[in-house]
Amino acid sequence: MVAIINQAHQVVSQYMDGFLLTHPELKRLEQAPIITVKEQSANCVPLISGGGSGHEPMHVGFVGKGMLTAAVYGEVFLPPTAEEVLCAIRYVDKGEGVFVIVKNFEADLLSFQRAIHQARAEGIRVKYIVSHDDISVDTKKNFQKRHRGLAGTILLHKILGAAAQSGLSLDDLEQLALSLSTEMATIGFATSSAHFPQLASPFFELNEDQISYGIGIHGEEGYRTVSFESSEQLANEIVNKLKLRFRWQEGEEFILLVNNLGTMSELEQGVFLNDICQLLDVEGLRLPFIKTGRFATSLDMAGLSVTLCRIKDRTWLNYLQANTTAPAW
Amino acid sequence: MVAIINQAHQVVSQYMDGFLLTHPELKRLEQAPIITVKEQSANCVPLISGGGSGHEPMHVGFVGKGMLTAAVYGEVFLPPTAEEVLCAIRYVDKGEGVFVIVKNFEADLLSFQRAIHQARAEGIRVKYIVSHDDISVDTKKNFQKRHRGLAGTILLHKILGAAAQSGLSLDDLEQLALSLSTEMATIGFATSSAHFPQLASPFFELNEDQISYGIGIHGEEGYRTVSFESSEQLANEIVNKLKLRFRWQEGEEFILLVNNLGTMSELEQGVFLNDICQLLDVEGLRLPFIKTGRFATSLDMAGLSVTLCRIKDRTWLNYLQANTTAPAW
Repeated sequence: MVAIINQAHQVVSQYMDGFLLTHPELKRLEQAPIITVKEQSANCVPLISGGGSGHEPMHVGFVGKGMLTAAVYGEVFLPPTAEEVLCAIRYVDKGEGVFVIVKNFEADLLSFQRAIHQARAEGIRVKYIVSHDDISVDTKKNFQKRHRGLAGTILLHKILGAAAQSGLSLDDLEQLALSLSTEMATIGFATSSAHFPQLASPFFELNEDQISYGIGIHGEEGYRTVSFESSEQLANEIVNKLKLRFRWQEGEEFILLVNNLGTMSELEQGVFLNDICQLLDVEGLRLPFIKTGRFATSLDMAGLSVTLCRIKDRTWLNYLQANTTAPAW
Repeated sequence: MVAIINQAHQVVSQYMDGFLLTHPELKRLEQAPIITVKEQSANCVPLISGGGSGHEPMHVGFVGKGMLTAAVYGEVFLPPTAEEVLCAIRYVDKGEGVFVIVKNFEADLLSFQRAIHQARAEGIRVKYIVSHDDISVDTKKNFQKRHRGLAGTILLHKILGAAAQSGLSLDDLEQLALSLSTEMATIGFATSSAHFPQLASPFFELNEDQISYGIGIHGEEGYRTVSFESSEQLANEIVNKLKLRFRWQEGEEFILLVNNLGTMSELEQGVFLNDICQLLDVEGLRLPFIKTGRFATSLDMAGLSVTLCRIKDRTWLNYLQANTTAPAW
């Protein structure tokens, strides 16, 4: 199947052109690949995030009042440079400091940490959180050594964004981010790899009836491949992994995010969400906030991921439910 | 590739269970497959629509204040029965009459018209519009004889829904619906057919590098199959078809809706939207309202459609921009 693009090297800039046409309240900076709000809220700590493209609507779709102030993007699966991240930090800084959300990938960390180091050297107060919600890690099998930043990153965007909008200081945002990121876990599956014929070959291959658990958002292969039985059986495997991670008690409250990794149909997404909710209900968990849709995708990968966040503080729910103008929330 | 479902006959009801979990402001009636708002606006004409499932989020995702009061749904690609539609009409009627939006498919019309006939016999004032925005019709070639109701139906939901919310009478809604539906056209393309292994075989087959123009939302084959060249070339064919339909003048204003037919990636959707906008700009058209996303899908079909609506009355824009609680707008 072909990909509906023009020249491969124009994909990201043409996507952004289209994105801005539908969101006139946002703009792109001339000096660097950065999407930002036209009107920045005064007296609030600005939030920035970013990374490689190919994960749309992340991150540009989450720029808006009550979420990100700016998103800085690279080419498909390539993070922006340190200079580009620095440009975003300088642009949004209005004296309250800047809070940065980075996904835990080696190349992303390199760019963002260098930029933060330089910004601090210039006198800008910067704090940051590394999102690392991925739990498909198995150091014994040498499978995946890093807790990657996956769809849980979007919950950080939303909760921290609303908290910043409500006037939290840079130091308080850092505390909140640390609490959140230690209570969050994501795991997913795919029925097909990400691939984009004109850009890259598939990163892994699956037979017609196969499922891969624990895939990443850059087409990284999962930890186990099985034959498909049913949505319920998939949900079961995923809930078991989450249970091992959280060791929850009956009655505990969680935020649930079911993320479409790209090209799973709406019907399948709803059926799987329902299976996850049924199983969590059997576990006795309470889910006062449930959300599903496309947040962090991986090109045309067909798959879904499940993010849970244990609610340690009920103000997190208020932040989640607060209004935002970000188009993709 | 497998479809993430359980038993095929449970797909629709399980999807709806999942849908309602994420939208606690909506409810399903016990007596029929109908999703409706928990709190119906007083003193407004209620709007209903519906049809077969497999097109999610249409129609249930457009139930909410300022759009549909209720949506009645059938199984995948099968319309609800006349009795089910009648149940929806009776349920929402509070004395202001009921306005119904039906897509122009033979089986849908049969159900809806029988229900409307019966409701009128019971003394309920009902008016309706048949959405028929499809322009991939070629009676000479015996290809497609009916102007099917496609993604333009969603613009009817939004504009008529906001108009009803603002207090328009049943007769005025009918006038508005007639004006709108004659100024609207949709045409699309696909790179793969809709198919759902456990439910049905693909309706048509395309080679790896092929595109089909003029496909329908039930997997109906298009009017022409070509090899893929570029997004821009696709946009060109589609803009030419729309130009023939509208015979527009430079400076005219249009609403633009680019609809993802299911499983096109976010990146491709944005690139194609940008190409369409560039070409319409070259034509000298003005586009004060542009929207893109998944509105009327066809299971897992990979494709996009373009809907244009000539703005004959600028109040249409106000209705489009009015707030709605419908989750999928």
